[in-house]
Amino acid sequence: MGEFHLLSPKGFQAAAVHAGIKTSQTPDVGLLICDTLATAAAVFTTNQVVAAPVKIGRRHIAKGKLRGIVVNSGNANACTGKQGENDAIHMCQLAAKIARCSAREILPSSTGIIGHLLPMDKIERGIVQAGQSLGNTIQNALLFAAAILTTDLKRKSAAASFKVGKHTAVLAGVCKGSGMIGPRLGLPHATMLAYLTTDAHLPATLLRKLMLKAADQSFNAVTVDDQTSTNDTACLLASGASGARIDSAAAIRSFQAALNEVCQSLAYQIAADGEGATKVVSILVDKAASDSQAALIARSIANSPLVKCAMNGNDPNWGRIVCAAGQTPAKFDPAKAVLRLQGTVVFHKGAPAPFNTHKVSKALNASEVNVVLTCNIGRGSATCWTCDLSKGYVTINADYHT
Amino acid sequence: MGEFHLLSPKGFQAAAVHAGIKTSQTPDVGLLICDTLATAAAVFTTNQVVAAPVKIGRRHIAKGKLRGIVVNSGNANACTGKQGENDAIHMCQLAAKIARCSAREILPSSTGIIGHLLPMDKIERGIVQAGQSLGNTIQNALLFAAAILTTDLKRKSAAASFKVGKHTAVLAGVCKGSGMIGPRLGLPHATMLAYLTTDAHLPATLLRKLMLKAADQSFNAVTVDDQTSTNDTACLLASGASGARIDSAAAIRSFQAALNEVCQSLAYQIAADGEGATKVVSILVDKAASDSQAALIARSIANSPLVKCAMNGNDPNWGRIVCAAGQTPAKFDPAKAVLRLQGTVVFHKGAPAPFNTHKVSKALNASEVNVVLTCNIGRGSATCWTCDLSKGYVTINADYHT
Repeated sequence: MGEFHLLSPKGFQAAAVHAGIKTSQTPDVGLLICDTLATAAAVFTTNQVVAAPVKIGRRHIAKGKLRGIVVNSGNANACTGKQGENDAIHMCQLAAKIARCSAREILPSSTGIIGHLLPMDKIERGIVQAGQSLGNTIQNALLFAAAILTTDLKRKSAAASFKVGKHTAVLAGVCKGSGMIGPRLGLPHATMLAYLTTDAHLPATLLRKLMLKAADQSFNAVTVDDQTSTNDTACLLASGASGARIDSAAAIRSFQAALNEVCQSLAYQIAADGEGATKVVSILVDKAASDSQAALIARSIANSPLVKCAMNGNDPNWGRIVCAAGQTPAKFDPAKAVLRLQGTVVFHKGAPAPFNTHKVSKALNASEVNVVLTCNIGRGSATCWTCDLSKGYVTINADYHT
Repeated sequence: MGEFHLLSPKGFQAAAVHAGIKTSQTPDVGLLICDTLATAAAVFTTNQVVAAPVKIGRRHIAKGKLRGIVVNSGNANACTGKQGENDAIHMCQLAAKIARCSAREILPSSTGIIGHLLPMDKIERGIVQAGQSLGNTIQNALLFAAAILTTDLKRKSAAASFKVGKHTAVLAGVCKGSGMIGPRLGLPHATMLAYLTTDAHLPATLLRKLMLKAADQSFNAVTVDDQTSTNDTACLLASGASGARIDSAAAIRSFQAALNEVCQSLAYQIAADGEGATKVVSILVDKAASDSQAALIARSIANSPLVKCAMNGNDPNWGRIVCAAGQTPAKFDPAKAVLRLQGTVVFHKGAPAPFNTHKVSKALNASEVNVVLTCNIGRGSATCWTCDLSKGYVTINADYHT
């Protein structure tokens, strides 16, 4: 997949510049423009506190059509009242002038500190400047991916291609997210931003349905600190430029598979770059009463600070995992459950399983840890990705000042 | 209240010894015995993973009568299968021999690591030894309070007295809890143990009702890490020895007030001694749609790792608080809400309120921080106590090995 990037799907251009909103000398204003009017679907935070760009964005995407996205990092434009909404609209107007379209065909996005008005002079200069360097090279894609980052340490991107008849379509995406991560998109949660492009052709209602399904199994299954944000947004633009039409059951399956693959890769990258993270913890709960009950249990384990600290210390303290599993309304019977850490059974149907603590502790000292909890009460399963809780998380969120 | 302790209510004796279950040279086996058959009420964890002593304890308290409590720290006797249940019963038998009663009149309790069988030889020696040093002095009370501690740094106790006609009754309690704290007693949550004594006289059904009410406004309103435990237990024994009969509306009010005061003091002490805590954060949500919705919002704020880290760093990052408030299913409209930190308005009806960041940051550098969120949509209110999230919490839970 190394050869594909956000602008590999035909029909897109992007650009990003450093406008001085973030203190670091990295891009903080970005543009992603489709050459034609794209079919678009987006899912937003379900938090009742909604940032200005999300309010405006919901309106602009209502008809399922967009020309592009304008985004800034360093300031969330959240809890900023009426002025914040006017600023988000003004961002769209500036981007629309560049794309030669209506401001209502642009989706605005912001991420960063809550409760401060945008520095509109900087934003304005940034958007105009970005407009002058639009292009579809890998450099353009990398700059755009960097422009959405805040406390992230790494750019996050993924792509997949698939065949529809004789056409090959590409689906690609970038995202950001490190803290305030516990998105429940479509429903309420996290600051997570994801932008996806594809050159497949499909109607807006279908795009939205497939996007919601993909979000549920990816962004909505990653948690760093279980905090939804005021700004969470994932938006997919389809240019149709490849000629691949998603109009058969087989084509829909191929498209959904590519979309799931890209979204899951992005979600995994968010967990890996979680604030202070030293490892990804992948939690699979299976044989639960239902998929949704499995997801509740997986998420409860993923959100336990005690489990996350144990993972940080390579401590096979499985009691904390079983305890977190029993805490949700989902049906769970410890007398039937089996728990594996990195492949080793540590708890078996109500009682401890003898294991070599030193060996399992060594196995936990890895960049990816697998927790598998088999409930043995049904056929439901779900996976959730998280990271460990380290002193680094506290440093980032306590010592860093607003 | 300095003069009262757990054994101030007439009719109780206690003892505790170091039996070698904890590695520290502090008491780890305790006995609390009522001279007569006491009326008793207890609330237990609502986690589906239930420790052996909780299973046995539920059975033993079913009739609302108990002679006493036997407790150990250092080992939770949880996830220990049938053997664990037999061990919990055996603890009761040993205590019953001392109290000259039926084993079914003893409530067993354990706290500590999950998934290890109790060292029954040590437990047995400890209970026998404790039986030889029963007494009702303040030293006995202090030793018992120490015997239930695990990662706690301080003993926790509280007491209140109240008049019923010409009689004066005393209500006192001790508790433990520092990590795995997010009790939802009666309902499901935390490792929290609380034992309360009173010499008032009241029937078991009334005692249970008043105890549930007190737990809701105290233990169920404290969270360190939102983790219910397999062992959470709060148990109140009423000896009736003061002659004060709780049989009028006025007497019930006096009793409930004393019970609430003691339980709230104990809950506050748990927050103050939370793992790694440097301060208590007291969160009052008022003018919410209902009391229960206010409690949901207060708990969401209290559980936000981002809010807790900001408190650790004395950072008036109010956006994180408003964001956590919007994350629950409880009705919340940021356009109507007002948020105060240590008395200073920082967010006012949808927009930031200008304030002196340096001054508020200085005010947050205190042993108690008050967060007051006024929703302005109804008449519900609730308070929740938590502590900050420090590197100390990570040290305790990551670097410490099982």
